[in-house]
Amino acid sequence: MTVRVGLIGAGVMGTDHALIIGRELHGAELAVVCDADPARAKAAADKAGCSRVETDPFAVIASHDVDAILIASPDQTHGPLTLACISAGKPVLCEKPLSPSAEECRTIVAAEVKAGKRLVQVGFMRRFDPSYMEMRNAVSGGTIGKAMMLHCFHRNVSAPAWFTGSMAITNSAPHEFDIARFLLGEELVAVTAFQPAVARAEGGVAPVFMVCETAAGQLVNIEVNNNATYGYDVRGEIVGEEGAVSMAAPAHSTLDLRLSHSTAYAADWRPRFAEAYRRQNQAWVNSIVSGQPVGASAWDGLCATLIAEAGVKALASGQRTAIAIPARPPLYG
Amino acid sequence: MTVRVGLIGAGVMGTDHALIIGRELHGAELAVVCDADPARAKAAADKAGCSRVETDPFAVIASHDVDAILIASPDQTHGPLTLACISAGKPVLCEKPLSPSAEECRTIVAAEVKAGKRLVQVGFMRRFDPSYMEMRNAVSGGTIGKAMMLHCFHRNVSAPAWFTGSMAITNSAPHEFDIARFLLGEELVAVTAFQPAVARAEGGVAPVFMVCETAAGQLVNIEVNNNATYGYDVRGEIVGEEGAVSMAAPAHSTLDLRLSHSTAYAADWRPRFAEAYRRQNQAWVNSIVSGQPVGASAWDGLCATLIAEAGVKALASGQRTAIAIPARPPLYG
Amino acid sequence: MTVRVGLIGAGVMGTDHALIIGRELHGAELAVVCDADPARAKAAADKAGCSRVETDPFAVIASHDVDAILIASPDQTHGPLTLACISAGKPVLCEKPLSPSAEECRTIVAAEVKAGKRLVQVGFMRRFDPSYMEMRNAVSGGTIGKAMMLHCFHRNVSAPAWFTGSMAITNSAPHEFDIARFLLGEELVAVTAFQPAVARAEGGVAPVFMVCETAAGQLVNIEVNNNATYGYDVRGEIVGEEGAVSMAAPAHSTLDLRLSHSTAYAADWRPRFAEAYRRQNQAWVNSIVSGQPVGASAWDGLCATLIAEAGVKALASGQRTAIAIPARPPLYG
Amino acid sequence: MTVRVGLIGAGVMGTDHALIIGRELHGAELAVVCDADPARAKAAADKAGCSRVETDPFAVIASHDVDAILIASPDQTHGPLTLACISAGKPVLCEKPLSPSAEECRTIVAAEVKAGKRLVQVGFMRRFDPSYMEMRNAVSGGTIGKAMMLHCFHRNVSAPAWFTGSMAITNSAPHEFDIARFLLGEELVAVTAFQPAVARAEGGVAPVFMVCETAAGQLVNIEVNNNATYGYDVRGEIVGEEGAVSMAAPAHSTLDLRLSHSTAYAADWRPRFAEAYRRQNQAWVNSIVSGQPVGASAWDGLCATLIAEAGVKALASGQRTAIAIPARPPLYG
Repeated sequence: MTVRVGLIGAGVMGTDHALIIGRELHGAELAVVCDADPARAKAAADKAGCSRVETDPFAVIASHDVDAILIASPDQTHGPLTLACISAGKPVLCEKPLSPSAEECRTIVAAEVKAGKRLVQVGFMRRFDPSYMEMRNAVSGGTIGKAMMLHCFHRNVSAPAWFTGSMAITNSAPHEFDIARFLLGEELVAVTAFQPAVARAEGGVAPVFMVCETAAGQLVNIEVNNNATYGYDVRGEIVGEEGAVSMAAPAHSTLDLRLSHSTAYAADWRPRFAEAYRRQNQAWVNSIVSGQPVGASAWDGLCATLIAEAGVKALASGQRTAIAIPARPPLYG
Repeated sequence: MTVRVGLIGAGVMGTDHALIIGRELHGAELAVVCDADPARAKAAADKAGCSRVETDPFAVIASHDVDAILIASPDQTHGPLTLACISAGKPVLCEKPLSPSAEECRTIVAAEVKAGKRLVQVGFMRRFDPSYMEMRNAVSGGTIGKAMMLHCFHRNVSAPAWFTGSMAITNSAPHEFDIARFLLGEELVAVTAFQPAVARAEGGVAPVFMVCETAAGQLVNIEVNNNATYGYDVRGEIVGEEGAVSMAAPAHSTLDLRLSHSTAYAADWRPRFAEAYRRQNQAWVNSIVSGQPVGASAWDGLCATLIAEAGVKALASGQRTAIAIPARPPLYG
Repeated sequence: MTVRVGLIGAGVMGTDHALIIGRELHGAELAVVCDADPARAKAAADKAGCSRVETDPFAVIASHDVDAILIASPDQTHGPLTLACISAGKPVLCEKPLSPSAEECRTIVAAEVKAGKRLVQVGFMRRFDPSYMEMRNAVSGGTIGKAMMLHCFHRNVSAPAWFTGSMAITNSAPHEFDIARFLLGEELVAVTAFQPAVARAEGGVAPVFMVCETAAGQLVNIEVNNNATYGYDVRGEIVGEEGAVSMAAPAHSTLDLRLSHSTAYAADWRPRFAEAYRRQNQAWVNSIVSGQPVGASAWDGLCATLIAEAGVKALASGQRTAIAIPARPPLYG
Repeated sequence: MTVRVGLIGAGVMGTDHALIIGRELHGAELAVVCDADPARAKAAADKAGCSRVETDPFAVIASHDVDAILIASPDQTHGPLTLACISAGKPVLCEKPLSPSAEECRTIVAAEVKAGKRLVQVGFMRRFDPSYMEMRNAVSGGTIGKAMMLHCFHRNVSAPAWFTGSMAITNSAPHEFDIARFLLGEELVAVTAFQPAVARAEGGVAPVFMVCETAAGQLVNIEVNNNATYGYDVRGEIVGEEGAVSMAAPAHSTLDLRLSHSTAYAADWRPRFAEAYRRQNQAWVNSIVSGQPVGASAWDGLCATLIAEAGVKALASGQRTAIAIPARPPLYG
């Protein structure tokens, strides 16, 4: 069986997905690329060897010769498109966030629960990254004893121009919120947020530092630094009662030049997580064939958005803010 | 177009290839698994989701519903099978060595030259490893100036039981010979070989240390240590006039435990080069579709075997030994 | 001129100081070792090649053939002994803390201000550690731009048996408080404290995580983990607007053994900071000869204790707690 | 007892020794600085706080108020001055080489044997470097099993202008020869030498690569690369039957800047081996007081020069060249 994928959204992220589906996955073909801008859809389709382009995403979702949907369109479209996939009974891989609105996430979860079947995977690709997988195994396998603290660092070269104050929390940090839940196997229940007052004069968003607490009493400390300047750099460390496990730097080679011994940082997330995206998408395709869901669920997408909403409140108020996680429906295990 | 691959050989290496073709490649399907032992063929085919098994490799090569052949059978079969592929006009990816006999390699090269078309790719998968690709770019891009020396280290946990004295040179070192030619873009023209007299009493093969010279006067220093005990560890460094570039250790995570800060070694080559094998095989499939050959050619296979033969003589004689590389046919660029 | 040093306190730390003074310093001699337990004093003196022992520290301070005092006796004695040194007009290097009581620290500062001359150096030896010195230079030299955040990690194998709940803050963290002030050149003005609820059942003190804020609005995030189990591990990173600088791991060699590539952690602070102690003590001796004070002052000692007191309150209350730093007397520049 | 040291030679190396003796050693004082150029002697003496300068080294050796001699004058003076120290019965620390002439080294060894007492220490300071000490312990303590190979890399930014062809072997490599003997506890008995033909057009000395063999059959592979351009970089690895031990890079901090994660190389040997020189000189002073010789002996100095002479022959001839080590006199244990 070959899974015929309809891709919605042909921006930077969508084009990357087009190339992964069209060139790297086993058992999948890129059936159609859909974008409001037909020229952009065609550019991505051409790169990926796909001959069909569309502009109406709902028509794509309804199309009889499309088996599954990958959503990489703008954030505010994620909710309606995902709901349409659930209605159509089609598997969907939705780029994060599931929705920027927790309310809309709840609607999606309710719809999927009503459908009685997991159809939605959220694109928290880090769950497929070999480093995070090894870190999780060190916790679940007992190597480092009971986990007490998780330190996360998310650094970008520079924030996009459209970033505003709280987007460090709503746009970048959800990857950290989800991976914390994945690594520790616990819900986050409170967050306190800090921000240094010294960020660069010439605009840009100041870093945010959050201390989250899990239901089991663990601490999750998160730096989100969208103007780190020096490189794209994601780090993580889990501190357990018997030891610690950390992400290793992902370099392939080392240079000795001009009195310096160095490895290179990527300028953005793509080289760092290329392998994670490929594995995520392959696992999604395999899960469609096998009927066994994998990766982050709609429930995980809801939780990430709930934490982000609490984080925004915590930063504004300067207070420790509780995160109200509803009861987990049995569908999500 | 989907390339229908016939896999010959279902041992450890063959089974890995079955899984890569059957699960990870885009545009390919595993059409048949062939092994002299039908049970072994079936086991590999089952794992990879392939329903057809055969025991006669020549029938597989001749089969109308097989487009291309991957040879992973024992070394002494590589030559005859590759020649059959050339006769059949079918693309073939042959595991290294192309043949243990330089004479047979020459016959293969002659046959391919006569066919007037490159059909043979040799499985020197390191050419697709991201570390070696970055190291090569540092040379070809001028980053470290003109290359003067290459240091190579090849270490295994332990040699297979069937290893005898010179197999460090004929079996393990060809990967180093080929990657040296790939990284430096030069032929090796002489080799001197040394062996420490202190290797472990309880059997096993002593390490070999070779100093090779390229046509451009560069040194290539190779340690092959098949009983290194501590782990599978391949390293490389190119020293240029302006700097140096090295392979970075391939770890994904770091452990802090029991007064030790550590990364793990694999027990064999598979985790280290899994990505290189996948990329090699995908590139091979793509090259069949595009008609543009990639990777190591039959010529490269011949050169590796010639160097190994000279290395064996050098070790026996204790003398610097010239490597007689014939003129390169125009087919090989 | 040879500075004749009187050492007060011959426990673990005192014996280390005896050996440094008696074997490693230029321009100093260990004139006397004083301890309430004369056998312990003699043991330390013998190791260091010193022939005089005493039991009354005030007599040592008053002694005409002692030029300077090094205090390494129990914490609660630091204040009275330091005050006696000021009264006697003798230079004193007092192990941290200057006093566990901020009130007593204030009395010492007042006494030194009244004396009109800096006589007191506090043993915050990290200021002489090459790693911290390089990190500070990266800030003061503008290499990484304006500092925004400092991350500090302090991990011990296990807390001493006499550790109680808040000693992570009052006993271990002062090193972090002082080095933060040293690295950033700013006062800490607020602290929020967190503690994971999951610390090991079998006793021991849970880790503490503090988020401090400087007068310039920078964040200083401190993990104090006195039962880290895996090793003595101190880390630090300063994140600036243009880049970041981190402490490098202090290993001298690397081992490849049993599928592991590792460096060793020390079991306690002594190997890690041996060089810092030697440099601190040599700088102290040199400063006595030159009359130019170096290192941490009584003022710095007071600040560290004030921050610790606020940290204890912050942990108990769960609230962001302001640190009331008084006006800095001109004596302290 | 304070050892009064007479320093002969006030060039770069001599000035460093003046500062070590005059500022960093316990139990020593810099009694006199001697140089053929009195202004240079005075400059070094002033820096080190020494008030006496001389121009006649033999007068210094004979001086009644000088207890021990440190020779840091040009290489060809080492032999006559060391012989004068032996005649005077005074302990001497002679910078390497003991003499550039093996014949003269033999004369010195004979004179010391005749004196019946070890007076000469040769300045192979690496024996006091913490990295090499840990590596040696990994061998002698059995951690890595029986040593089979030692890999040494010696790289300078650029060779001094006065370097000629074979000085890589006679001037730089002796540090490697000595440390190989120290680490392995074996004599070197043969050497084969290679040189890449591609060294930079604009002058400078090409790298040399030597494969040495010990009496126990181990291999010692040495790269001496005096125009490595990128930094001062010394590395070493011992490969044993059960594992391997390597020198760790000596960085104190790490920088993240401009898409690069880096540590710094020093421009010359001084930062790298500052601690080794201090420890060597302190151990020498202590050995004078205790009467127990430490460090490299005149015998070690002779062996290093003999190996260098064989290395020069090996490079010229292209042949494996035996190293004729005479019988070791009982004085050298």
